[in-house]
Amino acid sequence: MSDTRLTRSLEDLLAPYARRTEQVLQRWLIEPGTPKSLADAMGYCVFGDGKRVRPALVWMAAEAAGDCPEQELTARSAVAVELVHCYSLVHDDLPEMDDDELRRGRPTAHVQFGQAMAVLAGDALLTRAFGVLAEGRNATASRLAMELAAAAGPAGMVAGQVADMGLCPLPHGYEGLEYIHARKTAAMIRAAARMGAISVGADDRTLAAVSDYGESVGTVFQLVDDLLDATGRAETLGKTPGKDRTGGKRTSVSELGLDAARRLAASLTARAAHALAPLGGRGDRLRELAQLLAERTY
Amino acid sequence: MSDTRLTRSLEDLLAPYARRTEQVLQRWLIEPGTPKSLADAMGYCVFGDGKRVRPALVWMAAEAAGDCPEQELTARSAVAVELVHCYSLVHDDLPEMDDDELRRGRPTAHVQFGQAMAVLAGDALLTRAFGVLAEGRNATASRLAMELAAAAGPAGMVAGQVADMGLCPLPHGYEGLEYIHARKTAAMIRAAARMGAISVGADDRTLAAVSDYGESVGTVFQLVDDLLDATGRAETLGKTPGKDRTGGKRTSVSELGLDAARRLAASLTARAAHALAPLGGRGDRLRELAQLLAERTY
Repeated sequence: MSDTRLTRSLEDLLAPYARRTEQVLQRWLIEPGTPKSLADAMGYCVFGDGKRVRPALVWMAAEAAGDCPEQELTARSAVAVELVHCYSLVHDDLPEMDDDELRRGRPTAHVQFGQAMAVLAGDALLTRAFGVLAEGRNATASRLAMELAAAAGPAGMVAGQVADMGLCPLPHGYEGLEYIHARKTAAMIRAAARMGAISVGADDRTLAAVSDYGESVGTVFQLVDDLLDATGRAETLGKTPGKDRTGGKRTSVSELGLDAARRLAASLTARAAHALAPLGGRGDRLRELAQLLAERTY
Repeated sequence: MSDTRLTRSLEDLLAPYARRTEQVLQRWLIEPGTPKSLADAMGYCVFGDGKRVRPALVWMAAEAAGDCPEQELTARSAVAVELVHCYSLVHDDLPEMDDDELRRGRPTAHVQFGQAMAVLAGDALLTRAFGVLAEGRNATASRLAMELAAAAGPAGMVAGQVADMGLCPLPHGYEGLEYIHARKTAAMIRAAARMGAISVGADDRTLAAVSDYGESVGTVFQLVDDLLDATGRAETLGKTPGKDRTGGKRTSVSELGLDAARRLAASLTARAAHALAPLGGRGDRLRELAQLLAERTY
């Protein structure tokens, strides 16, 4: 199998979901009364060359879990997880954090708009994510916001970034790295899958299956990111490659080595597929996504 | 009337509400799984010498609007508005924003914990605010989150800070300042009053009254802040006084002059009292709060 074919296939699978996501992002991102300069910065952070993996997981999990996938709350969840993802990139890129100047092949938000606007655009995106969910105006919308807040908050994604910045003690070796990856990456990917299922009223068994799937896929996602950073090229990645290695940053590859990291990714991908067993054929597309994400080259 | 008596009275009025707020903050602020260093930073940003005006407005508006004020959603709203307020102080104090080193008589969060942790603690507080609301798990919780997101978000408080940082064009003179104050300060104070009323299921007439009241009180709050900054002393304020003036920053006092700013505050305080007319005697405590806030000396 050539990389080119796989790349095209992942794009093919994601493309229709990405289009749906762009549409609802366009509809809900900017509230009336937002200053134009802030709206421009928010748009810059959200619209670009992203794969829209997290909202795709929302849509796909909703399709796998429900009979009527065109729910408004599914769309709101897709927007909310993507806005939280975008806010986290903007704040993580800040000079006081990872100090990155290139993201998705373009200058990062603070390079483009200045550091104050980058902090504020991130704050605006995070707040707007919960606003878009809350505008669902029912108990399920509240349940979805609980999921999002838990995954993105101080015991989730923020904890992961605190740990990644060396701001809390961690076990040595891969165990410490697992702590970071589980919170910084996997928590939001798991939440995306869960929110898709919850948005269509999934039963407990389906929710548990989708949840286990999301956790494994989330870990694989980070493993593959590390593998690509160790082996990839700038023009394919759209960000500075080898930065982890040259910065002396611990990654799955530095802790496990290339081969073991690859084997772990393959084993977790199989586990993700297995988790979907209770869904039968309805889980096929999620299974395909897990496989293609594990084999992605960008 | 001596300032001392008034100061004591405002403290007396706020004290029981502040105690209630501390209790629920203690209960809900830190989720299990939060890294200790992050929990410490969040606690530092939240527990200190604050007046807890916004949560007091939540509790008081709930008392004025409902027959059964001990609602869980009132407590959740009180916590959420205070966490959003605290997050905004932490991010506003950052070197790339207002670059303040003293807040409530103590080093600001980035001085105490470093800039990365300050950004992250702010992000954590904002996310936790919506988490605490969402854990209410019903349609009203969702309605409350809508209010909070609208007031705090890109067309509300974030817009106010964007404008205050000079990051969007504004009308000259007091009109431009009004734009900032309406969004940076009054929007959240209005939202606090509204959320208190909504949390106990207020009818439309009551909600409109409380809403108009909150808007006027919010504007007065900022006017008094500007007056105190122009005339106050460091030991009373607990932050660097005269900073606005020495920094060449426009304030109500620089645009209107001391006397006109005082007259405007008095007139808006009367307007706040008038807005409460539909509530009759149930509005007495809110009316008292407006008066004491207008006359405060700290």
